[in-house]
Amino acid sequence: MSNLILRNVRPYGEAATDLLIRDGVIAETGTIADQPGIAVEDGQGAILWPGLIDAHTHLDKTTWGMGWHENNRAAVLRERIDYEREMRLELGMDPHRQSMRHAIGLAAHGATHIRSHVDIDTTHGLRLVEGVQQTREKLRGIIDIEIVAFPQSGLMVMPGTLELLDEALANGCEVLGGIDPCGIDRDPKGQLDALFALAGKHGVPIDIHLHEAGELGAFTMEMIFERVRATGMQGKFVISHAFALGMNDELRVARLVEEIAELDIGIATTGAPSATVPSARRLKAAGVRLGAGCDGIRDTWGPWGLPDMMDRARIIGMKNGVRSDHELRHMLEIVSQGGADLMRLDGYGIAPGCKADFTLLRGQTVGHAVVQPALPPLVVKAGKIIAREGHCIVDMP
Amino acid sequence: MSNLILRNVRPYGEAATDLLIRDGVIAETGTIADQPGIAVEDGQGAILWPGLIDAHTHLDKTTWGMGWHENNRAAVLRERIDYEREMRLELGMDPHRQSMRHAIGLAAHGATHIRSHVDIDTTHGLRLVEGVQQTREKLRGIIDIEIVAFPQSGLMVMPGTLELLDEALANGCEVLGGIDPCGIDRDPKGQLDALFALAGKHGVPIDIHLHEAGELGAFTMEMIFERVRATGMQGKFVISHAFALGMNDELRVARLVEEIAELDIGIATTGAPSATVPSARRLKAAGVRLGAGCDGIRDTWGPWGLPDMMDRARIIGMKNGVRSDHELRHMLEIVSQGGADLMRLDGYGIAPGCKADFTLLRGQTVGHAVVQPALPPLVVKAGKIIAREGHCIVDMP
Ligand SMILES: [Zn+2]
Ligand SMILES: [Zn+2]
Repeated sequence: MSNLILRNVRPYGEAATDLLIRDGVIAETGTIADQPGIAVEDGQGAILWPGLIDAHTHLDKTTWGMGWHENNRAAVLRERIDYEREMRLELGMDPHRQSMRHAIGLAAHGATHIRSHVDIDTTHGLRLVEGVQQTREKLRGIIDIEIVAFPQSGLMVMPGTLELLDEALANGCEVLGGIDPCGIDRDPKGQLDALFALAGKHGVPIDIHLHEAGELGAFTMEMIFERVRATGMQGKFVISHAFALGMNDELRVARLVEEIAELDIGIATTGAPSATVPSARRLKAAGVRLGAGCDGIRDTWGPWGLPDMMDRARIIGMKNGVRSDHELRHMLEIVSQGGADLMRLDGYGIAPGCKADFTLLRGQTVGHAVVQPALPPLVVKAGKIIAREGHCIVDMP
Repeated sequence: MSNLILRNVRPYGEAATDLLIRDGVIAETGTIADQPGIAVEDGQGAILWPGLIDAHTHLDKTTWGMGWHENNRAAVLRERIDYEREMRLELGMDPHRQSMRHAIGLAAHGATHIRSHVDIDTTHGLRLVEGVQQTREKLRGIIDIEIVAFPQSGLMVMPGTLELLDEALANGCEVLGGIDPCGIDRDPKGQLDALFALAGKHGVPIDIHLHEAGELGAFTMEMIFERVRATGMQGKFVISHAFALGMNDELRVARLVEEIAELDIGIATTGAPSATVPSARRLKAAGVRLGAGCDGIRDTWGPWGLPDMMDRARIIGMKNGVRSDHELRHMLEIVSQGGADLMRLDGYGIAPGCKADFTLLRGQTVGHAVVQPALPPLVVKAGKIIAREGHCIVDMP
C-alpha cells in the first residue's frame, strides 16, 4: 500500500489535476503540494482512467511466449475442446508460467483486474487452477485475479467434473462457470440444475459461457432466467458471449434483454467479429451491466488476441459500428467500469476514497485514446507504479 | 531503378535465400556473392513478401496528423457525405498534404501500391484529384498510386458531376468510380448507364462502391451483370464492399457469386466488422479476384483505421472467423496478390523478372507474421529501400 503524488493528469479526459495517494487509496485531488517522503510522478497531461478490467479471459490457455503453434485442424467446438485438453500435455503448457505471461501482459497494458475462467476436467483435475492460483499469489499487488471454476469439457458429459468443481470452490475459486448446456452437454436441465445447486452450496455467483446462437441460446437463457428467479440469484449471474442476443429478430431480442435487465444478469462480451454479438448500445439503454474480455489469446483454439484491453475496446467498437466520440467513450467504459460492475468491485473509480488502481492513456481526447494504438505511459496498482510504457516491473517468465 | 543485394530472407516464409536486384528488378535468387558497387542488406531471416497493396482507400479524406476531430453527429450515409463535403473547407483539409500523410503511412507499413478513390463533386470540382495527383508525383519511386474518379456525393443527384468525371478521366485518372446507384442516386439505371458509357468512351475499368445490403444490393449487382455482359467489360469491373454478398441467404449468394466469377468481376473488401461482408473463403473457392483496402482512415466519417495493410489483414481475418495457418496466409495474400489481381499489376511477385517491390515481415511463420502487430523491418520499392522499421525515407508533411 503505497503513497504517491501524481501531477498533471486528466481524470476521465477532463481538466488536468494532481492526485495524492496515501496507503494505496486516492486521498485528494486538486493542486497537491510536495510532501516529505512521498515520491512525485509527472503525468504530463495524460488521461487518467481507472484500471482496465479483463472480465473474461483464460489465463491457463495461452501459448504466448512459446513457439508459434501452427494449427490447420478442422474446427467444430467439441473438437477444439478435446484437442486443447490433449495438447496441453504435448506442448508442455505450464499453467503457472503461461498465466504469468498473460497476466503480466494485461497489467503492462493498463489492466488492474482479471476474471479468469480456468479449465477443470478429469484429465487435468485442479492442476490448471493451482497453476493460476500460484500466479495470483505471485502477482499480488500487481494485478488482482479472480478465478472461475470452469468445466470447459462439459459437466454432464464428463462424470467426475462436478466433484472437481465442488473442490475448486472449496479451495479458493470465487465464481462457478458453465458452458453451453445444450451445445456441449446435450442436457440443459442437467447442467443448469447442477450449477445452481453447487453455487447455492458455496454461496458463489455463476458466470456461464453461452456460445449457443439464435433460438437455441434464447431457449437456454430462458431456462437460466427461471432458475435465477427461483433461487434468488438476481445480480449474481453473468452470461458470457450471449451470442443469441445478436440474432436477427428484433422482438425476440427485446424480450430477452428486458428479462436480463429485470433479473440484473450481467453480460460479458468479446465483440467477436465473426459472431453475432450483443449490441453494447442496446444493453446500455436497458441498464444491463456489460463488461468485456480478451477471452483466450493465441491458444490452441485460434491465433487471435492480445493481452491488451485497449485493443479489445477497439475490436468491440468496430464490431458495434461505433463512430461517435460519445460511443468511443462507452467502449472504454465497458473495459473498465463495466468489468467492475460485473465483478462487483469495491472502491473502483477515480475519486477520494477509491483504490489507487488506474492507468494513464495517451490521447488528445478519450475518443482519440481509444482508437490510437499506444502503450500506456504509466499503470498504478494500489498506489504503486507497476508498469511504464508497456513494461511491467515483473518480467515475463 | 536501383541495385541491391538482400541476404538471408525467406520468400513467402519458405527457406532462407539471397536476392539480387538489378535496375529495380529481381535478377536472381539463391546464394548471391558480393558484387562491386552493389549495396548489401542483411534480411536477418525475415519473411520476404511482395509489396502490400491497398486496393481500396481514400487518400483525400483522412484527418491523420491534424487535431483530433471530435464527431458526435447522427449518421445516415447521405448526411455523412454532405457533412464531409462541407467539413473539408471548415477543417482546412489540404488534399495534397493529407494524401501525403496517408500514402507515406501505408508505405512505411509495407505497401507499394495504392488504388485510391478520390472525391469529385460540384463543390470541390477536381481540386481533390489534383491534390492527390501532386502526391502521386512526389511519391514516385516510393509508392505507386492509381486514382479512381469517384462521385462520392452521387452522380444523378448532383448535375455537373458527370462532366467532371469525364474531365478527370481525360486528365490522368485511371479508373471510373461509382456509388450506390439505388441508395445514393435513387436511379440505378441512370447512374449505371452513365458510368458504362463514360468508361467505354475513355476505355477505363470501373470500380464501384456498393454498400447496398441484402436484396437491394443483389438487385444492383444484377443490373451491373447485365451491363458488363452487354458492353464486354468482363474482367474490367470491381465491386467494392459488396455487402450484399454477406447476406443471410445461402442460395441467393451462391447465384450472385457464380455470376461474378463468370464475368470475372473483382471484389474489394475491408472486412468491415459491423457490416455483412463477402466471405473470403467462398470467393477464393469460386476463383473470384479478391483484394482489400483500408478504406477511409480517421476521417469525418469515422475514427477507425490505420494506414497499415497488415492491420487490415487482421481485421478481415477476424471478421472471416479465420483460425488456421492456411487461412492466415490467405489473409496476407488478399492484401498483396489479391490487390495486384484487382489492379492488374504487371511483374508483381517474388521471382526473377518481377519488380523489386516487397516488404520484409517479422514472424516465425507467415501465420505468426499476420497475427502479431509489428513494424516491417524493411520495405523496398523498385529495388530501393524506402522504409525501415516503420519509418519512411520521406517524412510526413
Ligand atoms: Zn471464454
Ligand atoms: Zn471507400
